[in-house]
Amino acid sequence: MKPTLPKGTRDFSSQQVIKREYIFSIIKRVFKQYGYAPIETPAMEALQTLMGKYGEEGDKLLFKVLNNGDFLKKADQQAIQDGNSDKAAPSLSKRGLRYDLTVPFARYVVMHQNDLQFPFKRYQIQPVWRADRPQKGRYQEFYQCDADVIGSGALIYEAEFLQIFDQVFEQLNLSVNVRYNHRQILLGVAEYAGIADQFVDMTVCLDKRDKIGDQGVLQELSYRGISDAAAQKVIDVVSMEDAAAFAELIKTTEAGSKGYEEIERIHQFLNEYQPTNTFTLDPTLARGLSYYTGCIFEVESLETQMGSIAAGGRYADLTSLFGMPNMSGVGISFGAERIFDVMETLERFPESLSTTLDAIILPMDDTALVHGFSLASALRKAGKHVDVYPKPAKMQKQMKYANARQIPHVIIIGTEEVASGMYTLKNMLTGEQQKTSAADLHSSI
Amino acid sequence: MKPTLPKGTRDFSSQQVIKREYIFSIIKRVFKQYGYAPIETPAMEALQTLMGKYGEEGDKLLFKVLNNGDFLKKADQQAIQDGNSDKAAPSLSKRGLRYDLTVPFARYVVMHQNDLQFPFKRYQIQPVWRADRPQKGRYQEFYQCDADVIGSGALIYEAEFLQIFDQVFEQLNLSVNVRYNHRQILLGVAEYAGIADQFVDMTVCLDKRDKIGDQGVLQELSYRGISDAAAQKVIDVVSMEDAAAFAELIKTTEAGSKGYEEIERIHQFLNEYQPTNTFTLDPTLARGLSYYTGCIFEVESLETQMGSIAAGGRYADLTSLFGMPNMSGVGISFGAERIFDVMETLERFPESLSTTLDAIILPMDDTALVHGFSLASALRKAGKHVDVYPKPAKMQKQMKYANARQIPHVIIIGTEEVASGMYTLKNMLTGEQQKTSAADLHSSI
Repeated sequence: MKPTLPKGTRDFSSQQVIKREYIFSIIKRVFKQYGYAPIETPAMEALQTLMGKYGEEGDKLLFKVLNNGDFLKKADQQAIQDGNSDKAAPSLSKRGLRYDLTVPFARYVVMHQNDLQFPFKRYQIQPVWRADRPQKGRYQEFYQCDADVIGSGALIYEAEFLQIFDQVFEQLNLSVNVRYNHRQILLGVAEYAGIADQFVDMTVCLDKRDKIGDQGVLQELSYRGISDAAAQKVIDVVSMEDAAAFAELIKTTEAGSKGYEEIERIHQFLNEYQPTNTFTLDPTLARGLSYYTGCIFEVESLETQMGSIAAGGRYADLTSLFGMPNMSGVGISFGAERIFDVMETLERFPESLSTTLDAIILPMDDTALVHGFSLASALRKAGKHVDVYPKPAKMQKQMKYANARQIPHVIIIGTEEVASGMYTLKNMLTGEQQKTSAADLHSSI
Repeated sequence: MKPTLPKGTRDFSSQQVIKREYIFSIIKRVFKQYGYAPIETPAMEALQTLMGKYGEEGDKLLFKVLNNGDFLKKADQQAIQDGNSDKAAPSLSKRGLRYDLTVPFARYVVMHQNDLQFPFKRYQIQPVWRADRPQKGRYQEFYQCDADVIGSGALIYEAEFLQIFDQVFEQLNLSVNVRYNHRQILLGVAEYAGIADQFVDMTVCLDKRDKIGDQGVLQELSYRGISDAAAQKVIDVVSMEDAAAFAELIKTTEAGSKGYEEIERIHQFLNEYQPTNTFTLDPTLARGLSYYTGCIFEVESLETQMGSIAAGGRYADLTSLFGMPNMSGVGISFGAERIFDVMETLERFPESLSTTLDAIILPMDDTALVHGFSLASALRKAGKHVDVYPKPAKMQKQMKYANARQIPHVIIIGTEEVASGMYTLKNMLTGEQQKTSAADLHSSI
């Protein structure tokens, strides 16, 4: 039997795991500095926790886990006989794989509300699963890296998240533009155009503006039943190049005025902060997700085209899904898969990640092998990462192995070295070779 | 809707995640020092990769993922009509959740054999899923922590793993007994008792000896068709208290002689090593898993009763399941869940894990809040972990929040502090309070 992997899933080699962990470790470090603490939720959630939370399309993309045991006994026989898979599914499956980290987070907060301190700051880095059609860069299993604070409407958190974006990408050695906006500014645009009641339609169309252009947006707005005059008014106002004039105009609306007030409050916090990356207030930034109610964020690389590599926003009502209303929150998510691709493209992973070993001991004979084992023990005790070639094979074979594993130093031991206690240390990068005592090895590798 | 979790699954609070990561980080650090590099495999494997690998019982405990889309269309209608769930399952599901890390590892090695350097040393720390009946300490989702080396029969790796056990538990501050044995020594016992052809039956029975005692083993052996005389011979020989006499006796068998030869080679490597924990050659140690062919390991806490908290052994033929024969390997696994319980019971987690924050800034008014935000930025830039209470609430309320989050220091800022640049720093453990400048804060928290 020739083994395969399910489509849309991947193995990660050591090199990939180490690079991915490098990204995660920087994100985690910054999250922790801002008081975010980790939680973890199980891969499987009750199917009813997930169903209906991601729209009709989302329900279809949920991976459902077949009930164990004699699952046909409790199945919906009628639906099965009718060949109605959608109707039969809930009777065959009561568990689903997590589709994102947001819904499990909301469930977590509701279930553990009596044990949590609010505002509750948590981060979560775990895989999610979606039955999307696999294609280049899109997988059925991928990681999400989220941080959220819930239980406070304070705008200090929006300011913190802007800093977090700035610092994570600074530490990853990537240059980005952090765009932000406020849903109330967008609502102001809708009010100004007289289509406040079609606000969601407008944001969904505007969200595609980067891809489909102004003409595309006009067509989509029209398709969604917005008059040509109102649609043109939307495009005209979001195309204004003078930011101050735009602000003056939108502030005349009730929502716009509130939006700008909050944005100015956020600016007040950041007054003294010198970002490494750019922060851009972009009044046309829309974000597709309908649950955002306040400030929204989107981050793009300035060095390569990759779309959004991080994003987020404020929501008023996430936990009301599970019966806990009025919990304002704000959260962000780093797109680890895309960040990985950007880092690879721009070659920003540190060289030092290419091996986890400092040296390997190459024994010429059996006595040297046993001696080398003890030498390795001593070096490891001193904190070094050391391997031993497991048997006295030909030098060429051993060197080839060391090379293939990209180990920076080899320590060659034969009869003479065992007798004298002076080992042959070779730097695999420079080719330089020298005799070194056990004591000096600690500092040389 | 009141949210719930599927039975047998758990949320992990921040405290639990931090403690679990502490255990993982020590295990990883030691693995890396010995040249083991991480890999990761997807949660979902092709069902045919998993089926038949864990026995009949295992097949039943596999979580199967329902096919997406119109899954009934390709379903085995006859099996469904017959109400035959076992027969219908493979037609409804082509993916399963990983049941352990060993089978995915074997699949990985076979699929990536051309990209790997042999001997290939990998570690893997990921969750696995089993539809076991949930009970205290047994979950349907739990982590495994495995390290394996494959592609070499060299006994240096057995010696390394004994060291790895010793060092991991030393660094976790746990005292353990590492028992080891050799399957050929056990086979020697079977040969001596004249039941070499019932070797697997014998090991399965002996593996339960700790639980069921000698009488229980005798009964089970008899139940499995082994004569009373042979069964008694097995018990007599494994009950011998004189290890040297036992060895002499078993070395008279062909297998026993080979087993002791290998054990002596392992001892030769460890001759100079001073373990912190105890290593015990236990000729009655059996291990239930039938794929072990050489040295086997089992680790128990010496401080509390918890059963085996780590284990492993050598196998001759893991990848032959997937058409790649003759790849000898040896691997070990740490039982992270049980180790967690032992650490909790014995209170061995460091105090420092109880919070990730160094300090929280408590603002008395709005000016102090904005000022506090900048102060927090500066402290974070210097590497500190700092939070800010998000609005100028009553002191009592803010202090309660700081207390509940177990934050060791609070920095109180009011109008006076903003004007003077001297902040009130309170140590929450000692209650001590002092005025401190921004510059001094860095060293005080």
